[in-house]
Amino acid sequence: MAGNSFGQSFRITTFGESHGDAIGVIIDGCPPNISVDLDFIQAELDKRKPGQSKITTQRKESDTVKILSGIFEGKTTGTPLAMLIPNEDQRSKDYSHIQDKYRPSHADYTYQTKYGIRDYRGGGRSSARETAARVAAGAVAKLFLKELGISIFAHVSAVGNIEAPNLGDLDVNQLVAIREANIVRCADPATANQMITFIDSVRKEGDTVGGVVSAVIKGVPVGLGEPVFDKLHADLGKAMLSINAVHGFEYGSGFSGASMRGSEHNDIFVNPIKQATSLKTLTNFSGGIQGGISNGMDINFRVAFKPVATIMRSQSTINQQGEETEISGKGRHDPCVVPRAVAIVEAMAALVIVDHYLRNLNLGRA
Amino acid sequence: MAGNSFGQSFRITTFGESHGDAIGVIIDGCPPNISVDLDFIQAELDKRKPGQSKITTQRKESDTVKILSGIFEGKTTGTPLAMLIPNEDQRSKDYSHIQDKYRPSHADYTYQTKYGIRDYRGGGRSSARETAARVAAGAVAKLFLKELGISIFAHVSAVGNIEAPNLGDLDVNQLVAIREANIVRCADPATANQMITFIDSVRKEGDTVGGVVSAVIKGVPVGLGEPVFDKLHADLGKAMLSINAVHGFEYGSGFSGASMRGSEHNDIFVNPIKQATSLKTLTNFSGGIQGGISNGMDINFRVAFKPVATIMRSQSTINQQGEETEISGKGRHDPCVVPRAVAIVEAMAALVIVDHYLRNLNLGRA
Amino acid sequence: MAGNSFGQSFRITTFGESHGDAIGVIIDGCPPNISVDLDFIQAELDKRKPGQSKITTQRKESDTVKILSGIFEGKTTGTPLAMLIPNEDQRSKDYSHIQDKYRPSHADYTYQTKYGIRDYRGGGRSSARETAARVAAGAVAKLFLKELGISIFAHVSAVGNIEAPNLGDLDVNQLVAIREANIVRCADPATANQMITFIDSVRKEGDTVGGVVSAVIKGVPVGLGEPVFDKLHADLGKAMLSINAVHGFEYGSGFSGASMRGSEHNDIFVNPIKQATSLKTLTNFSGGIQGGISNGMDINFRVAFKPVATIMRSQSTINQQGEETEISGKGRHDPCVVPRAVAIVEAMAALVIVDHYLRNLNLGRA
Amino acid sequence: MAGNSFGQSFRITTFGESHGDAIGVIIDGCPPNISVDLDFIQAELDKRKPGQSKITTQRKESDTVKILSGIFEGKTTGTPLAMLIPNEDQRSKDYSHIQDKYRPSHADYTYQTKYGIRDYRGGGRSSARETAARVAAGAVAKLFLKELGISIFAHVSAVGNIEAPNLGDLDVNQLVAIREANIVRCADPATANQMITFIDSVRKEGDTVGGVVSAVIKGVPVGLGEPVFDKLHADLGKAMLSINAVHGFEYGSGFSGASMRGSEHNDIFVNPIKQATSLKTLTNFSGGIQGGISNGMDINFRVAFKPVATIMRSQSTINQQGEETEISGKGRHDPCVVPRAVAIVEAMAALVIVDHYLRNLNLGRA
Repeated sequence: MAGNSFGQSFRITTFGESHGDAIGVIIDGCPPNISVDLDFIQAELDKRKPGQSKITTQRKESDTVKILSGIFEGKTTGTPLAMLIPNEDQRSKDYSHIQDKYRPSHADYTYQTKYGIRDYRGGGRSSARETAARVAAGAVAKLFLKELGISIFAHVSAVGNIEAPNLGDLDVNQLVAIREANIVRCADPATANQMITFIDSVRKEGDTVGGVVSAVIKGVPVGLGEPVFDKLHADLGKAMLSINAVHGFEYGSGFSGASMRGSEHNDIFVNPIKQATSLKTLTNFSGGIQGGISNGMDINFRVAFKPVATIMRSQSTINQQGEETEISGKGRHDPCVVPRAVAIVEAMAALVIVDHYLRNLNLGRA
Repeated sequence: MAGNSFGQSFRITTFGESHGDAIGVIIDGCPPNISVDLDFIQAELDKRKPGQSKITTQRKESDTVKILSGIFEGKTTGTPLAMLIPNEDQRSKDYSHIQDKYRPSHADYTYQTKYGIRDYRGGGRSSARETAARVAAGAVAKLFLKELGISIFAHVSAVGNIEAPNLGDLDVNQLVAIREANIVRCADPATANQMITFIDSVRKEGDTVGGVVSAVIKGVPVGLGEPVFDKLHADLGKAMLSINAVHGFEYGSGFSGASMRGSEHNDIFVNPIKQATSLKTLTNFSGGIQGGISNGMDINFRVAFKPVATIMRSQSTINQQGEETEISGKGRHDPCVVPRAVAIVEAMAALVIVDHYLRNLNLGRA
Repeated sequence: MAGNSFGQSFRITTFGESHGDAIGVIIDGCPPNISVDLDFIQAELDKRKPGQSKITTQRKESDTVKILSGIFEGKTTGTPLAMLIPNEDQRSKDYSHIQDKYRPSHADYTYQTKYGIRDYRGGGRSSARETAARVAAGAVAKLFLKELGISIFAHVSAVGNIEAPNLGDLDVNQLVAIREANIVRCADPATANQMITFIDSVRKEGDTVGGVVSAVIKGVPVGLGEPVFDKLHADLGKAMLSINAVHGFEYGSGFSGASMRGSEHNDIFVNPIKQATSLKTLTNFSGGIQGGISNGMDINFRVAFKPVATIMRSQSTINQQGEETEISGKGRHDPCVVPRAVAIVEAMAALVIVDHYLRNLNLGRA
Repeated sequence: MAGNSFGQSFRITTFGESHGDAIGVIIDGCPPNISVDLDFIQAELDKRKPGQSKITTQRKESDTVKILSGIFEGKTTGTPLAMLIPNEDQRSKDYSHIQDKYRPSHADYTYQTKYGIRDYRGGGRSSARETAARVAAGAVAKLFLKELGISIFAHVSAVGNIEAPNLGDLDVNQLVAIREANIVRCADPATANQMITFIDSVRKEGDTVGGVVSAVIKGVPVGLGEPVFDKLHADLGKAMLSINAVHGFEYGSGFSGASMRGSEHNDIFVNPIKQATSLKTLTNFSGGIQGGISNGMDINFRVAFKPVATIMRSQSTINQQGEETEISGKGRHDPCVVPRAVAIVEAMAALVIVDHYLRNLNLGRA
């Protein structure tokens, strides 16, 4: 069984290679009667698209999305919603030099060995270009979440060793405004400047660097998540780990929780509005999820991205015939992937939340 | 859609509450003609069972497993393999004091709100007792992996701030021998002693502490993992995050990769045995997985566990009616969960690897 | 991917062989807070159990069901509901004569060839004994349907060439009373007598005979069914075809519709209670389903069962070594399976309706 | 959970409405290294497309398929294969007269009530136009089956009360040649002539008529089918019942088996080539499937289609406001759907067989 679908009730299936005709996505299970704001969907894609600034790849793609089905007179119909994003700026000849070489820390070797064939142009299916389809689907999910009063915010919280301080008590709109005012998409302006300078210097060295995207989801009702395997954080974790270059996921206290004691880690319940079903906790080491089910507090998590594997330097490697060879980076690549990854993290989070919102209805007889 | 199944081709479904008659698991998709070694399955369960030592809960359960179906004359038949583990030492009265109280950082509040009903005895379905069923299924998976020459090793690599050094180049059998010689299940004896002393002191304070389990999988062939969503590490991550108390997962370079540069992080291919399909890499920051597909190197990952929520101290909380109240730990609980979690981590890893091994056959025409 | 689960939102997984320790079923996705009437579940099982009358097998099984999990204080909890039915009257020696022989029109040859191993005792997993687990799960589904005002009725409408006339306008309770008053479970008493006499004569000849079970589902709301593949009748058809010995399924006009004209087959809409969402149709050739979605009319369908393959006569066959041999029926078998199959048809119908009821909630924003 | 996907290992998801921009399909799980013959795929679509003859609709669609992803240098790559069929001849104004009327025996009422919105143009998603996407996917499945030596043949065996005699012992190529020589696609030329004359007369009366498509699958190895729910015939049945207008499915002896005795119905095993794994049966009432698993004999089944609901006559009905109204057929419709349905039946059969072929590998260790 292949693995190009995600979600159960709000289920997406993506298709397409980096240098084929198009990439795209089908959403099956999209609730009917959602007003589809195409400008919003396009704006989400624009946050992920290449060529945005000096610290992203110079590859140019307009990433213009077209909806082929599933809407009627501007609203979703409950039938499959298919979206297509044509590929435009395909300089396939940029890749002829890697036709039979296995690029270090790329998927060339594993794809070739697994399938016995691969589209080597731009990484083919293993290219992060596939994530544009996720962002398009995630934008539709966000339109539904808006109706529900649920909002998602992600930003770049670390690049290399530069880490942003914890964000204060701003609302999501304020945070977005700050984040979008800088090209690295960090919601702390001072840190953003340091990050930009650093990425630019790394880029000039022909090198790349990793980073961390942190996210918060606000307004999630109590009850999302399906024990024991499809816990909400387990599906969030899978969603994030399925994004290209991600090597780690933690929520709530995360890895730091492993060195804490129960007496400090336990989140004490309080009942500020005195309704039995709307408790809060004084702390939130649980990250908004207890027993795999949302508890109504903010859901927060962090996602670690490794440095981009394509560097503008010569590296030794092996070719398809098993012989030693050299490879050097060509083409147009990102020195650091996290500024563009913010939109992908938000999209995947939106997909998980909508999926679990719809799954929860099945049991919702409380 | 509920969430009590895991895996696609080797699919398990668990059932049972902490204080019901029994817990159990069905494996659907178990390959036929595997010799079922019941002693091995029981031995795996014994590593997870309560009451093993002074640093685990004193609750006594023999956790004796019985196979109800799916084997004939000692071999699997390809039909559903059902296993049952009766519950024995149920002191349900230990839980009457929490009948209508929401224990901090437990699942009481979220289960009650989601379902409108809950079995409060011992946490009911949210109890980690459910993981015994996973260990039983994982043991069957391991029997299949043995035939394939794939082995899995996990151990406690951190408790609180005590961290084990990297393990040397020992084989899995040697590592298991060292690990099983101490009650904390750390493969470094000196660190193990420190951990044991620390956990015991925490226990005496009525407190609990978190920890980290690290794991390695050896002998995985190239090609396991199904892009783009069911990447091997994404499914490993979900598997680990679905274990009670887990708050973080990383593989390969993990979170530390986020601060590295591409030039140091890239794993350079070499070809020691000069066969085109058996490459190695000089480093292994990829953690044995590239593009979501195993590359033949060791797969390694780390799993963060929060401190156990039940502490032997008084805490304020809210009851089911929304009123403030006090709660104090009773019953028999673990001061630190990781020594028993080692078996669970290995079991879930085995389930993921077998599942992807069987899924890969679908496309295996290389 | 193996095939021992059925349903998406109300998902059952069955296990067990005819002569193993037990058979059973897990329901995952059972809504919480359903009152579980064990007597009702047992009564449903009693309609399927062997040894009921002279026209069923004389094999004796009490088919006593035990619930292992998923209920608390008499109500479902939303967690997996596991049910176990121990096997009692296992005369495995009855089957030693077929240990290596392939019984004609049984599953011996296909199981052996597919899996390379089989539990030959009583047909192992291929035995219709497995359907007891379905009846148990279906009984839980029926308890939920009762709350929704949906009822299901099936009866034996044909045995051999003896066919019952169309039933008049009785309600389900009346129909059940008539049906249960005769051992063949036909809701037309005169026809029932003919059927019983006929089956008894076939039995005395050491032969068997097929039959048809007809069913109606009343009270289904408009909107159940998920186009384009999971149409309500497609899932009903699959459910019925998955029952042992079933060779055909039709709904509404069925095969006779193939020889009709559109002008006579079209069901004309009327609006007796003058509400826009509660239309009726003058005829019901659509069988209560249009475009794969229930339209609020009675859902009716017919299921064809082949004659039982085990006959009390000598037949030539081939053994596992490929050699010609003779086989003669031993043990205790049904001369006609449909009287016991009525409960299975109702159970599978209940499972389909509940599953689609829960699936429909996902999109239910009309 | 919505229902626009079919299959597990070879999984298709279709999208698109009758009068949207395009319809299409994604295949996830297509084995790599299949040579993709675009002319063959187009030829399959041409058998289903409208406007072929006087007895099909005069609507004109070239149904030109384009592959967007999943192939490289003419071969499948194991990644999702997406195919697009643009909609061309959309006379949406033909449908303005039904904008708010519920056509009898169509899906207008059920879609509107289920989703609260519907694309009324040409039936939207409920249109049989969707089946073009199935035929395209089925054609890819057939390319894989060709490699395996498995062939599928379907033809029109009944229209109204005109039934074709049983076909003699011709091979599939011969049968196809006879069938394609007449516009009704019946493999008996004399019967074909009667059918054509009859359909044409029905058409002239503004009426429509139903029919039956019969099919045979040759060359299936022993072992396909996954008990107990995903029996091969159960999945074939679901596949067929999911096709627009289908009201019945039977395999092997089908409904006629219900009136037979075991002593005549049992298929006696013989071993003509004296190999233990290649048995034959003297008769084939089992239809090539025993216990839900293929037994190596021809698989045969019959599919009943109701008459097309759109007739060129005036009918009374109800509109969206619940008021009585009149409706009369406009546009271009088929007087009988079965000649074009032959390609759909073959496509769905191919999808089921490939899916089960790939699923079977999981357990194939015999």
